[in-house]
Amino acid sequence: MSGLKVAVVGATGAVGNEMIRILEERDFPVDQLHLYASQRSEGKKLEFHGSKITVKKLDNDSFKDIDVALFSAGASRSLEFAQIAVQSGAIVIDNSSAFRMESNVPLVVPEVNSHCLNSKSRIIANPNCSTIQLVVVLNPLNKISRIKRIVVSTYQAVSGAGQKAIDELNLQVKAKTKSEESLPENFPHQIAFNCLPQIDVFLEGGNTKEELKMINETRKILESDNLPLSATCVRVPVYNSHSESVNIEFYEDMNSKKAREILNRSEGIEVLDDIKKSVYPMPIDISGKDDVYVGRIRDDDSLLNTINLWVVSDNLRKGAALNAVQIAECLLGKNILEV
Amino acid sequence: MSGLKVAVVGATGAVGNEMIRILEERDFPVDQLHLYASQRSEGKKLEFHGSKITVKKLDNDSFKDIDVALFSAGASRSLEFAQIAVQSGAIVIDNSSAFRMESNVPLVVPEVNSHCLNSKSRIIANPNCSTIQLVVVLNPLNKISRIKRIVVSTYQAVSGAGQKAIDELNLQVKAKTKSEESLPENFPHQIAFNCLPQIDVFLEGGNTKEELKMINETRKILESDNLPLSATCVRVPVYNSHSESVNIEFYEDMNSKKAREILNRSEGIEVLDDIKKSVYPMPIDISGKDDVYVGRIRDDDSLLNTINLWVVSDNLRKGAALNAVQIAECLLGKNILEV
Repeated sequence: MSGLKVAVVGATGAVGNEMIRILEERDFPVDQLHLYASQRSEGKKLEFHGSKITVKKLDNDSFKDIDVALFSAGASRSLEFAQIAVQSGAIVIDNSSAFRMESNVPLVVPEVNSHCLNSKSRIIANPNCSTIQLVVVLNPLNKISRIKRIVVSTYQAVSGAGQKAIDELNLQVKAKTKSEESLPENFPHQIAFNCLPQIDVFLEGGNTKEELKMINETRKILESDNLPLSATCVRVPVYNSHSESVNIEFYEDMNSKKAREILNRSEGIEVLDDIKKSVYPMPIDISGKDDVYVGRIRDDDSLLNTINLWVVSDNLRKGAALNAVQIAECLLGKNILEV
Repeated sequence: MSGLKVAVVGATGAVGNEMIRILEERDFPVDQLHLYASQRSEGKKLEFHGSKITVKKLDNDSFKDIDVALFSAGASRSLEFAQIAVQSGAIVIDNSSAFRMESNVPLVVPEVNSHCLNSKSRIIANPNCSTIQLVVVLNPLNKISRIKRIVVSTYQAVSGAGQKAIDELNLQVKAKTKSEESLPENFPHQIAFNCLPQIDVFLEGGNTKEELKMINETRKILESDNLPLSATCVRVPVYNSHSESVNIEFYEDMNSKKAREILNRSEGIEVLDDIKKSVYPMPIDISGKDDVYVGRIRDDDSLLNTINLWVVSDNLRKGAALNAVQIAECLLGKNILEV
């Protein structure tokens, strides 16, 4: 079998696992798949195209002969090993926040800015989950009528915080049905039957790191340095798929009818909007799907040229693993990676 | 015991039950309490100050000698019986949407516009839950610096849809822990582990009725006919207490420091905002409390004189039952009701 030597770093995590599934589903040309994780998971076996692959501990020799390495093991692991992978000759597609804002690192959502990928790209950053689904929707609109300002409030699923966070919601829900208590470990407070207006740590100025990521990454991807964007990121007791309530003001002519037409013909977007039948995207329906789903497209009568959208996407797939694999596919398409 | 003859209409519902508790807690001067509900609940006994009171079926004679009737049995029940109650000599405080937008009906949140109450007030409307907590916060800010525009996204608890909706979330969560299915009845789709961007029915123009209520009621209460407000109302799998992500633009000088000072000294508001310790209001903590809680007070750097707030309040209490009883207390204070 001809193909690439691919490494998945963080293979046992929620995103890593999804990366393996997506490489399979999309028949990505894999000759050898190497799975890496922390010592704790060493020896575990994961299935890929019917064979069992043993998870190895990540070390300095892990990237010999690797063509492309998909990293999703947290920023500190990326900071430690991405350069080693590059020096070993691999191209790194990194799902962590480690390199996203580095000026020489492309931050790529293929539908939006695959033009940033070129033969010099050795580390390519995958944007944050909540940013990806937002820019997929903003970009085609911004191309037709320039965006003046965005106000977004998110409803983010626990899977964005990894497998442990999924387990934590599970435990808390089971405890609650037995009127027992289950203390928070991965979240700052109980997540079951609650809303946490905090994702990641707080920064100077009062935004969380998640909110600042959304602002900075959106600006970088849309190549609009000072794009005004206000974000409030909230964790909700949903297992998977992030939802976003998005209010967008445009400099010139825009309305819901026009936005619907643009979104309908845009790549990677599915409009799901038939309010007469209570049809709109919801996290439980969108989980497992590839596109970014948009509904509740309506004029905001409070301001000229302003619309509201409800945007839902599978944060483990388009928000992370799928986007990373799509970047690898782009690299193949541009012959930056060659089989 | 001297006091008023009080009727609670819809006594067996989630809000009605809370009304009875709040009349007790606040030692509202009740001489006789009459509890009314639909035929289904006739004969049920509910406790008030240690005595059991039998729930009666509502009919045309229910309001004889009643001084004040608290209605929370849905708009159609209010439309049918509020005038009968008034003709019997009672003052009606109505928690339904039936009369809220009638020009001769005061729509009252006591901290905001108790000046609307006068001796001619025979029907007084209690605003919608999501509106009450919003205007309590907007009003003191608006008095210092006029509000130019508001963008709000809500995270609303199931209790806002009544006891049946609470039971539905319970059933769906239990079914899920057993990997069984439990179909939606009160909501258009599954609410457990999901977000529903629909509360109430859809209207011309694409807003839901809940969203339009928020726009229209806020304008009426703040006496600002064209106040620009965009609302996206979302149901989340939380049992009780609504959360709101609120972005507010002001015409003139405003910032987070100033807003914090104003909110700190305003009636009915508790500022809970210490991000260094991950302190902010959350629905599980605010349930059972009386005030409107505000946290995440921060400057929105995307626009001049603009701030973000996170506002949480118990929708059954301040959002409904407590506000209704506070209106009755105002009527007493103004001698419109007399013991």
